[in-house]
Amino acid sequence: MALVCQLLGIHATVVMPRDASPAKRAACAGYKAEVVLCEPTNPSREEVSKALQEKHGYTLIPPFDHPDVIAGQGTAAMELIEQVGVLDTLIVPCGGGGLLSGSATAAKHLNPKIRVVGIEPEIADDATRSFRTKSLQTVKDPQTIADGTRTASLGKLTFPLVLQYVDDFQTVPEEAIKEAVRWLFYRMKLVVEPSGALGVAALLRGVVRPQGRVGVVLSGGNVDAEVMAKILLD
Amino acid sequence: MALVCQLLGIHATVVMPRDASPAKRAACAGYKAEVVLCEPTNPSREEVSKALQEKHGYTLIPPFDHPDVIAGQGTAAMELIEQVGVLDTLIVPCGGGGLLSGSATAAKHLNPKIRVVGIEPEIADDATRSFRTKSLQTVKDPQTIADGTRTASLGKLTFPLVLQYVDDFQTVPEEAIKEAVRWLFYRMKLVVEPSGALGVAALLRGVVRPQGRVGVVLSGGNVDAEVMAKILLD
Repeated sequence: MALVCQLLGIHATVVMPRDASPAKRAACAGYKAEVVLCEPTNPSREEVSKALQEKHGYTLIPPFDHPDVIAGQGTAAMELIEQVGVLDTLIVPCGGGGLLSGSATAAKHLNPKIRVVGIEPEIADDATRSFRTKSLQTVKDPQTIADGTRTASLGKLTFPLVLQYVDDFQTVPEEAIKEAVRWLFYRMKLVVEPSGALGVAALLRGVVRPQGRVGVVLSGGNVDAEVMAKILLD
Repeated sequence: MALVCQLLGIHATVVMPRDASPAKRAACAGYKAEVVLCEPTNPSREEVSKALQEKHGYTLIPPFDHPDVIAGQGTAAMELIEQVGVLDTLIVPCGGGGLLSGSATAAKHLNPKIRVVGIEPEIADDATRSFRTKSLQTVKDPQTIADGTRTASLGKLTFPLVLQYVDDFQTVPEEAIKEAVRWLFYRMKLVVEPSGALGVAALLRGVVRPQGRVGVVLSGGNVDAEVMAKILLD
């Protein structure tokens, strides 16, 4: 978002939890976005964002629970399928569910037979439980290395979309997430943050069995040097 | 090469200097290639390779000074230009000159007006001096972080091709190489080894001024966790 605003010549202010990765903060600052810190909770983020919005008349772009954001994140799956053709399975990481519900909506629209699987860390499995029980479950500040999935729960919009378009959920242990980050680094030469590597973790660990042509959405590369070094040297 | 041999079901033996990066050794072993170590000199590599060749009847694939290898490495530039269209400038790292002379040959064939620039580390500038003096210059075991460019000199085949098809040479200091690796990691989310990041270093440092549409060949991602961590935390 910081990059897009810079390219379009729009002033961007990013509200970010105090414990967000320094790499993410540095990236925003590098793209000339203003960074405002909040407490690492949904209420704090919403309060700080609302105050800025009211004071400056800013347009708010929420992290996931908004139709435009969901649609935008869904272009990941759309572009993937447009580029590689028909897929039988699509594997997508899940935090607040924006990327997953958007990708699932786009994928099912292009091919109703595609199997869409959401992946969460074992210790942040709120969406998996929500999907299985069909009632919204939460998780409280799980200390997973996949910091993009520490969100307390799916959103008002993403939960029903997940129930409608996602076929399955699986979880992966922390060690599998690190293994996936290492594999992407050493074999694919890609810098992927732990949250973005959940799909690869699921395949490497065998919790999703590949059927036919499989697509994996890798999302997010905001990983600190310290975190990456620790994972690589593990 | 190890990966290609594995895909084709061919047994591969890789002769590698003792001081090659552990990541490179691990990658070869991961793709089921046999790794044989030699001293970090051209004569030792040639001697060990020749002995293996004579004993087992192996087909030798030299690192750069062979028409097929040069042609194969030239496909990097060919595919780049086929994918992105006409380029005005092409920037390519230079070690033994296989990638550079192959890329320059391919690029000039596709567009005689393209400007091709070779990049070396300041402390391993043998090819730059060879290019400028038009006589083959050498360098002795330079301790550049760009270990893929520690080659003593251009080869019998690559030197004349470089003279024929390359328009300019520039060098970059060690600090610029590290800066380029960091930039590729944090901004492009790519794992590129120092040797492969020379072109980006030249642009970031301003030693090559971008004219028109610029293509940069990034080559090699065999970087150890320790080396990457050190560069990132620098």
